Amino acid sequence: MTRSLPNSRDAALLARAQRVVPNGVWGHMATRAIGPGYPQFFARSEGCRVWDVDGNGYIDFMCAWGPNVLGYHHPDVDAAAMAQLKDADIGNGPTEAMVELAELLTETVDHADWAMFQKNGTDATTACVTIARAATGRRKILVARGAYHGAVPWCSPSLVGVTAEDRAHLITFDFNDTASLDQAVAAAGNDLAGILLAAFRHDVGRDQELPDAAFLQHARAVCDRTGAALIVDEVRAGFRLDVRGSWAPYGVKPDLAAYSKAIANGWPLAAVAGSERMREGAGKIFVTGSFWYGAAAMAAGVKTIEILRDSDALAHTEAMGLRFREGLDAAARQHGFRLRQTGPAQMPMVLFDGDKELQIANAFCSAALRHGVYMHPKHNLFLCAAHQPADIDRALEGAEEAMKEIAALGLQPA
Amino acid sequence: MTRSLPNSRDAALLARAQRVVPNGVWGHMATRAIGPGYPQFFARSEGCRVWDVDGNGYIDFMCAWGPNVLGYHHPDVDAAAMAQLKDADIGNGPTEAMVELAELLTETVDHADWAMFQKNGTDATTACVTIARAATGRRKILVARGAYHGAVPWCSPSLVGVTAEDRAHLITFDFNDTASLDQAVAAAGNDLAGILLAAFRHDVGRDQELPDAAFLQHARAVCDRTGAALIVDEVRAGFRLDVRGSWAPYGVKPDLAAYSKAIANGWPLAAVAGSERMREGAGKIFVTGSFWYGAAAMAAGVKTIEILRDSDALAHTEAMGLRFREGLDAAARQHGFRLRQTGPAQMPMVLFDGDKELQIANAFCSAALRHGVYMHPKHNLFLCAAHQPADIDRALEGAEEAMKEIAALGLQPA
Repeated sequence: MTRSLPNSRDAALLARAQRVVPNGVWGHMATRAIGPGYPQFFARSEGCRVWDVDGNGYIDFMCAWGPNVLGYHHPDVDAAAMAQLKDADIGNGPTEAMVELAELLTETVDHADWAMFQKNGTDATTACVTIARAATGRRKILVARGAYHGAVPWCSPSLVGVTAEDRAHLITFDFNDTASLDQAVAAAGNDLAGILLAAFRHDVGRDQELPDAAFLQHARAVCDRTGAALIVDEVRAGFRLDVRGSWAPYGVKPDLAAYSKAIANGWPLAAVAGSERMREGAGKIFVTGSFWYGAAAMAAGVKTIEILRDSDALAHTEAMGLRFREGLDAAARQHGFRLRQTGPAQMPMVLFDGDKELQIANAFCSAALRHGVYMHPKHNLFLCAAHQPADIDRALEGAEEAMKEIAALGLQPA
Repeated sequence: MTRSLPNSRDAALLARAQRVVPNGVWGHMATRAIGPGYPQFFARSEGCRVWDVDGNGYIDFMCAWGPNVLGYHHPDVDAAAMAQLKDADIGNGPTEAMVELAELLTETVDHADWAMFQKNGTDATTACVTIARAATGRRKILVARGAYHGAVPWCSPSLVGVTAEDRAHLITFDFNDTASLDQAVAAAGNDLAGILLAAFRHDVGRDQELPDAAFLQHARAVCDRTGAALIVDEVRAGFRLDVRGSWAPYGVKPDLAAYSKAIANGWPLAAVAGSERMREGAGKIFVTGSFWYGAAAMAAGVKTIEILRDSDALAHTEAMGLRFREGLDAAARQHGFRLRQTGPAQMPMVLFDGDKELQIANAFCSAALRHGVYMHPKHNLFLCAAHQPADIDRALEGAEEAMKEIAALGLQPA
């Protein structure tokens, strides 16, 4: 085992935080649930790299859990936001940036006839559900078992503080399972408001699944037949796979889509994009937030989408993901491990075969940290356009050292 | 009637927006619901002034509907945020700014033993309700009739797209009415999770009411007796009236408080602040958002709270509010109107007596716009620390011209 990384400043900050924040840290970035050695507090980010508060640097494969798509501190995106900030960010209404962003989004995303903007992915998924109900006058929303759609009572993965009524009108089915979807549709009867699907299956801790084209087409046909809304949760995948929308390659258009995370390369922004038949419903609901017209984030969104549309950023990122995938696979095999790498290469799930308790993954990710590679043992990873071949190769050297170390510990597939 | 203000650019932007956004604009800043002449799109803001996209400037009495408490583009706040942005905004965890902000908030706000941060006021109110349920294992939340606590199904002022179950565990009572509160408490029986109150009554279109000390003390006693959480919605009032919390002058401490709007002088931030007895419940729920650890907004929050704590910003703002109140009152009387000005002078509600359909208020606010004064006919106004006596006096000149014009139109109280 190599030395541990210095972490005294991280430990001191966590101790301070634990006095003034419940558990010190909340939500998906709390590292107490994963293996040892994860820094909790960060001091700096640049391109595909992050530095913790003790000065340890990492090649980053979480990308702020999704928002970083072009590289941290992308100069053009940040310059656009800063230029807007100088004039106006929030005021008593939107700025021209909102119109530009909505025009660009509807031109770029194949299913979008209109857009509205928010701050959180959960704002967008919640608005989609509300719009579907407003547009149809019905209540039931079909959701895939195990899918994550946000962190408020109607959709939170935790039931603590949640009442049964918060989910009274949800009906579950299995992703990519047409018969299961049909059962849920039947259960909804004439009260079907919408079908909510992630862009692809990216549940925590299990193999990812791209959607079957036939399954998407079936869901589309059900919505066409019943008038329900086909809703795609693009919060995690949106503007990472295809700037036209993640289902564009399948030729299936949702009625409503929730975007966030990557849409403004880290500036806080979310969006609902909808089709013409949902416009009236969207115009009838009341949704708002104090900062939703914040123009700096919108200017950042415009620049981010333009770059994604006009450059090879996404193709490059996918290529880097494939390079990383192949290298990881080779490193694993060399040390007696077999990986299951699933989903799109630019947001891969990396699991070890025969690792039911995630012991191997936890040990591997902890070891990788010490070699300057930041990954996650059970959540999908994210690559960004700032990853260059040299970064990937250096990360693979670290990953190979980590594989060697966990093999030496005697960790082996069950 | 004076000339109309130029608005060709505003009209053109609205026409563009209507193609790509349902109704062109959503939420509380859509001006279609109020009188004519309101610009919808803004280009610039500075101090206590905003400029619309046609170049018309206004002395602003809405302050972005609350976030602007120190003045738009406050140099120290923006410098703190920019310095943080240079290092890290979002990453794979929080930065030291989160710890500093939570420490400062708990030192400054008298009822706060811990804090958690979000992006929207609605995030904070929703988290308060979830924490109250988690902490008590009960479900009923008591809310005052007509109060605004956010724009998601459980609390939205609109029922469109909302199901009955979204509000299944809400019980209403009348603000400042102890008997009414007691009835609601009785209705909740042994399922009382919390009592949710605005810092003061600031419902749209009606006189504001400060809380009665006896009412707050009664609500506090009910929560002490039952173990329920006393929750204050400080989203609108927080960090405007008293940096220690709006109820500090009453000596009543809530268990949970939702802050947003003014907390970071316009940078997108919200907070839940809680007492020790709610800490465990807060630590058990799952709440998160992609941008909630955004460090730039947190650095802005630290600087904003420091300035509010260490300067006379709030006392100055209140003095400016009183100067405005007195001047408005005199201008109204001079032209045969009688105003009902209620609530704190720094966030006043200004209504015309005998103006049930808001005809007078709409005409007055439209006229005031033409004289360079931005107000709202039925929502409380906001002043900020950047308002100086000369700004108030100039705004009063505009207001007096507007009073003269509406009197000349023959608009008179019913």
